[in-house]
Amino acid sequence: MTRPRNDNFLRALLKEPTDHTPLWLMRQAGRYLPEYCATRRQAGDFLALCKSPGLACEVTLQPVERYDLDAAILFSDILTVPDAMGLGLYFETGEGPRFARPLRDEAAIAALASPPLEKLDYVFQAVTTIRKALNNRIPLIGFSGSPFTLACYMIEGGGSRDFRHIKTMLYARPELLHRVLTVTAEAVIAYLNTQIEAGAQTVMMFDTWGGALSQAAYLEFSLAYMRQIVARLHKTRDGERIPAILFTKGGGLWLEAIADSGCDAIGLDWTVNLGDARRRVGDKVALQGNLDPNVLFAPPEVIAREARKVLDAFGTGNSGHVFNLGHGISQFTPPEHVHALVEAVHDYRNH
Amino acid sequence: MTRPRNDNFLRALLKEPTDHTPLWLMRQAGRYLPEYCATRRQAGDFLALCKSPGLACEVTLQPVERYDLDAAILFSDILTVPDAMGLGLYFETGEGPRFARPLRDEAAIAALASPPLEKLDYVFQAVTTIRKALNNRIPLIGFSGSPFTLACYMIEGGGSRDFRHIKTMLYARPELLHRVLTVTAEAVIAYLNTQIEAGAQTVMMFDTWGGALSQAAYLEFSLAYMRQIVARLHKTRDGERIPAILFTKGGGLWLEAIADSGCDAIGLDWTVNLGDARRRVGDKVALQGNLDPNVLFAPPEVIAREARKVLDAFGTGNSGHVFNLGHGISQFTPPEHVHALVEAVHDYRNH
Repeated sequence: MTRPRNDNFLRALLKEPTDHTPLWLMRQAGRYLPEYCATRRQAGDFLALCKSPGLACEVTLQPVERYDLDAAILFSDILTVPDAMGLGLYFETGEGPRFARPLRDEAAIAALASPPLEKLDYVFQAVTTIRKALNNRIPLIGFSGSPFTLACYMIEGGGSRDFRHIKTMLYARPELLHRVLTVTAEAVIAYLNTQIEAGAQTVMMFDTWGGALSQAAYLEFSLAYMRQIVARLHKTRDGERIPAILFTKGGGLWLEAIADSGCDAIGLDWTVNLGDARRRVGDKVALQGNLDPNVLFAPPEVIAREARKVLDAFGTGNSGHVFNLGHGISQFTPPEHVHALVEAVHDYRNH
Repeated sequence: MTRPRNDNFLRALLKEPTDHTPLWLMRQAGRYLPEYCATRRQAGDFLALCKSPGLACEVTLQPVERYDLDAAILFSDILTVPDAMGLGLYFETGEGPRFARPLRDEAAIAALASPPLEKLDYVFQAVTTIRKALNNRIPLIGFSGSPFTLACYMIEGGGSRDFRHIKTMLYARPELLHRVLTVTAEAVIAYLNTQIEAGAQTVMMFDTWGGALSQAAYLEFSLAYMRQIVARLHKTRDGERIPAILFTKGGGLWLEAIADSGCDAIGLDWTVNLGDARRRVGDKVALQGNLDPNVLFAPPEVIAREARKVLDAFGTGNSGHVFNLGHGISQFTPPEHVHALVEAVHDYRNH
């Protein structure tokens, strides 16, 4: 297997020299693109879109056709794994994800098991289909939710402001939460390794809610499981390294611990100064981030200026930095503003 | 004027020796208390409760009667100031605060002015009434929202997940946001100083949304204004020091800068390890916090254990630490669990 023709993204993750700072955008295949909305309408709803490998491939490629991006990311949802476990994922309009059968008692937790991988076959088929369609132009990122973030949805039954149910379990019955996390981590390992076998060239774990924990709870209930997963991921496929990226939103206080987890790169939200982050993690890992997605509502010249601030904060040398937003792109983003961002990043030269 | 009979709270804020680590709880007068719910029903609604000095006094004292707390906090809302500016505060059931006339255009921003203090007289009357009722038993805390947090509500028109409108203004038209913040900071200075004149013995600024900003934006649009306010607050009244506490939720990355603002103490949410925070700010300021409020859903022995972890993290010497939650107490907290917390903190002895 050979590297993609544009492999700047992989090189940056491995801290090898790059031609330019590579960039992609979290949630780059999303509702801000009219062509995405059209395909989603065709699919019927969001879950049907995720579960159709052909349509998932189509929307994965849409931002890559429109913009000069350095990586594509599998179009899917972070909650496919608990859905395959039988929790019954569904989406209420405007309400975000919900589970019909959340984990609220010991019996449900005792019965929880890693799902048969056939139930996730639509994801692996999408990976293979997208790799074929990309035709080695740029690398493809596979992903999963982190065990803690998946457990938040599995136990709360949907999104939450206070995480009352999972935190009550965490403090009052930690052994129950550890069981949920252990089963989920096993499932995530199999899920990501099968994505790698199907063609994912990098894997990223989204720990959307780890930042809601105290430091001690984060280390024990979120990072410990991500560390186990990273240790058991395929490190290479066909001789090529498969880098692993960990993204804990709101995890800026714990970068040293995350850098120590065995991952290749850390995803950063926009609250951390990228230069400070680089000094704190040293040469241990690459960094991915971290423009506030709200900058994309400003005019093009402001977007370019704010993008340069992020690049300047990372500092000299363009190895070890993947430019990204600090969170998913907003559905209200004017698509032409993304052009301004991509240009600003690709035109940037360090002095 | 003499200090209250129990002045451990004031001494801790001024880093003087204390008999025990003092504690109070953010939102201690709140819906978890049945007596609060009864008074609120009597008032009719939340705003009517805030605007009645007698009833505001009654609910301020309820937690102080029930628990052995070391400080009382004025019962009020952070949005009284923009309400007095004419933005039309109201509450939708289950939806949180809303403004009938949010700031969305240049004309509205140009017209914005510091409100006449008479419009906030109900707050100052409540302070005086509460001081009389407390009868010098424990100190009374006055408070305000930070200019940035107030501006979030004023510009978004209510709560927000992404702060799209204020951040668009911040990046695209920073001079407009600076005008909103300048006017609001002037109003907050007058508001807090009048609370001090009415009897508040400590003032706290709640920067609930500063943590949603990038570091650069936080320093320029939130902390800079809090620093100005702190510099212009009355430092003493009748010979007694009036300490100022700044609380930026999600501000754990910026403690050094906050400690440098001239405040006496920093309020911490639960994500920061208190020992790390103490090492980072050194002897500059006292620290207030920082138990995850969700711990209060666990059984009493777990509450005691987790409270001791916070106290242990602060370390030896009991000066310079005010125990608190890292955020407001949840309405779902069993009231008897608060007893377990108060006991655990007061019984704690450093080895």
